[in-house]
Amino acid sequence: MKKIEPKTLKGFRDFLPLEARKRQYVINTLKSVFELYGFEPLETPVLEYEEILTGKYGDEGDKLMYRFEDNGKRRVAMRYDQTVPLARVVAQYQNQLAFPFKRYQIQPVWRADKPQKGRYREFIQCDIDTVGTDSLLAEAEMIAIVDQVLKKLKFPKYEIRINNRNLLFNKLKEAGINEEMFSDVIRNIDKVDKIGWQQLDKNLEELGIPTENVKRLNSILSVSQSIEQIPYLSDLENICKEMNITNIVPKLYLARGLDYYTGLIIEIIIPEYGEDKSVGGGGRYDNLIGMFAGKDIPAVGFAFGFDRLLEAMEALNLFPEEIMNASTQVLVTIFSEDLKEKSLEMASKLRSSGINTEIYLGEIKEKNALEKQLKYANAKNIPFVLIAGPQEIEKNIVVLRDMKTREQTQGTIEELMKNLHSLK
Amino acid sequence: MKKIEPKTLKGFRDFLPLEARKRQYVINTLKSVFELYGFEPLETPVLEYEEILTGKYGDEGDKLMYRFEDNGKRRVAMRYDQTVPLARVVAQYQNQLAFPFKRYQIQPVWRADKPQKGRYREFIQCDIDTVGTDSLLAEAEMIAIVDQVLKKLKFPKYEIRINNRNLLFNKLKEAGINEEMFSDVIRNIDKVDKIGWQQLDKNLEELGIPTENVKRLNSILSVSQSIEQIPYLSDLENICKEMNITNIVPKLYLARGLDYYTGLIIEIIIPEYGEDKSVGGGGRYDNLIGMFAGKDIPAVGFAFGFDRLLEAMEALNLFPEEIMNASTQVLVTIFSEDLKEKSLEMASKLRSSGINTEIYLGEIKEKNALEKQLKYANAKNIPFVLIAGPQEIEKNIVVLRDMKTREQTQGTIEELMKNLHSLK
Repeated sequence: MKKIEPKTLKGFRDFLPLEARKRQYVINTLKSVFELYGFEPLETPVLEYEEILTGKYGDEGDKLMYRFEDNGKRRVAMRYDQTVPLARVVAQYQNQLAFPFKRYQIQPVWRADKPQKGRYREFIQCDIDTVGTDSLLAEAEMIAIVDQVLKKLKFPKYEIRINNRNLLFNKLKEAGINEEMFSDVIRNIDKVDKIGWQQLDKNLEELGIPTENVKRLNSILSVSQSIEQIPYLSDLENICKEMNITNIVPKLYLARGLDYYTGLIIEIIIPEYGEDKSVGGGGRYDNLIGMFAGKDIPAVGFAFGFDRLLEAMEALNLFPEEIMNASTQVLVTIFSEDLKEKSLEMASKLRSSGINTEIYLGEIKEKNALEKQLKYANAKNIPFVLIAGPQEIEKNIVVLRDMKTREQTQGTIEELMKNLHSLK
Repeated sequence: MKKIEPKTLKGFRDFLPLEARKRQYVINTLKSVFELYGFEPLETPVLEYEEILTGKYGDEGDKLMYRFEDNGKRRVAMRYDQTVPLARVVAQYQNQLAFPFKRYQIQPVWRADKPQKGRYREFIQCDIDTVGTDSLLAEAEMIAIVDQVLKKLKFPKYEIRINNRNLLFNKLKEAGINEEMFSDVIRNIDKVDKIGWQQLDKNLEELGIPTENVKRLNSILSVSQSIEQIPYLSDLENICKEMNITNIVPKLYLARGLDYYTGLIIEIIIPEYGEDKSVGGGGRYDNLIGMFAGKDIPAVGFAFGFDRLLEAMEALNLFPEEIMNASTQVLVTIFSEDLKEKSLEMASKLRSSGINTEIYLGEIKEKNALEKQLKYANAKNIPFVLIAGPQEIEKNIVVLRDMKTREQTQGTIEELMKNLHSLK
């Protein structure tokens, strides 16, 4: 057999235990907050009929989508986002679902994008959406969840930037910009934090917007306005105050690239991570979820940028220590073949009391048995090692070694178990 | 735009909230036991280079595999199982991993099999494997985990059937069967619980095994033997005893269809669910994991049949009540538009104390506001509803309605919160 090189496709990743634990930690935090607000899990298949997905993400989406013909000659496509599958679910099961339907979905999606730092071809999306209500309360809830998630993940500083797409439309009209150009103009405004106002003006002029209108738009959007002056946003902020949400920053020029927003738009910025790197965004989109149901269904949603969130946590060193360690708390060593039974007994005791425990499974050679086992614990980041040689066993005690401080404690196994529990 | 029918591909499933919760419950149980024994999570991509996967699962595997050419003209294939990706990971990261490497992996796989009851084209596999040791302890650990998982999922009765593939080989030799026929014979023996011994004899004769040998094999395998008489199995059972594992049933004719086992084989049967429907299996396979590393690496593993496990739990009614309910514990109703603020305040209080809480987001029409909200709670299986009208608010109390018993309790919100916490 020819030797096959073990490698992964570009833009695709393996997650070894440490990375997998970090991801799991963030996912669990997201889920717990989503459920605190009454959102329920939804899962959809990786493969869909191609016609369900194509045409929904513009030409670029169709180009980047993974799609092929299956064995039964059906055209199929891999999940590209979680909004179109949600729209399908809402139409397909409309009689089984209670509305307003509040669901979260945390699954991977695939896009054949050019892989680069922080951009992958397989990545997880974390979506929450409330379908079937135009209530301002549903919008405030999105903001509350974002606020709570960022607090729970311990980000010291963050901004929840909000705006209203209709407000923005009005500003564009006020500046005298032609409605046909709105999409293009908004896509450019969305980049202003990256490119600056001067460059924005240039780009808009290149689009063919008359200089006079560009100037007027600049003067309208770049001033900071107090929220009391802005109709829709002040109502929303009042509700948010009642919900004890802080860190909201109204921002008149916030645009978001996506065409489908119809009202509120939200974007999170973590300044210490990057002023121009949003770690999540969302808003109200009332004309999309009904695409399969054949009628307009109002909806508001938010999606966390999972990889960016992880990157930001990494940059700010926010992962708790227990995630950096193995999930195993204790490695029970085997002193020698004939004491194996004793070690097994101890491991069983630890597990029965709920302590994640490994027993060493490698070969035990009398000469350097312990050394090898300590090395194993070290390599796996197991925080504690339990040692029991003939002397200890005679005295009915064990030794617990803290792998970080190298401190060793002696005691009965019950005593040491108590210590370990107090650390959990 | 032409109307597109909202539908899923055959063999693919959506999981609405109730089903998703059930799946999550089983996955969380599995993970907690896997981690109790020191197994760490691993995730691999859905897409692999085709050459990594093809040829590893026999002709049938190649036929059932989802594979295609991506936009960059690379031949790619979708994950077909989790063992070949594990073998790739072991070779690719051999210098980063600590051996024995103990990992669990719980991800979906795809097979273009004929869809039928209980068989899907997209389904989750739950694997644990210990790589890099031939220790009997590693095998006992697999059995211990299986035992603990089934206990934790509350199966009242189950059998952990074990055998040793080498033992079985020896029995085949003893019966005079030609070594070339071993694979075919084993595949047939594996079905004996479904087809019975008589049919097995017929099938073996049809394979061309002489009647005399068939008879001899039948007499060797069908007798029940006490474990003390069986060399390897009795050692293993002794270790299992020390680990307090019950429900082990040595079974000389246990075969498992897969060709790659080299030692221990394990299979779980839940008699009340089906004598012939294994809900999981595994064993030792020492010649497979090294396929990319270019050397033999010993390994022992086990995989739960996730869909069967769920089906068995459904059949025996083992899902706890809190899974059948929404994860939301309380719906805070809104009595009228002008009391919305009060409801918001209460919802915030409940959430701050860690109670999963929804506030009604639908339209409030004075006439039947409460009725509509109770209906919503009912449809979503939310167990409690909080009601506060003008009279209650004046007295500074609220009403908590138990949606199942229809009982209503009055009290301050703090009192009722205490009650709710005691129910968690």
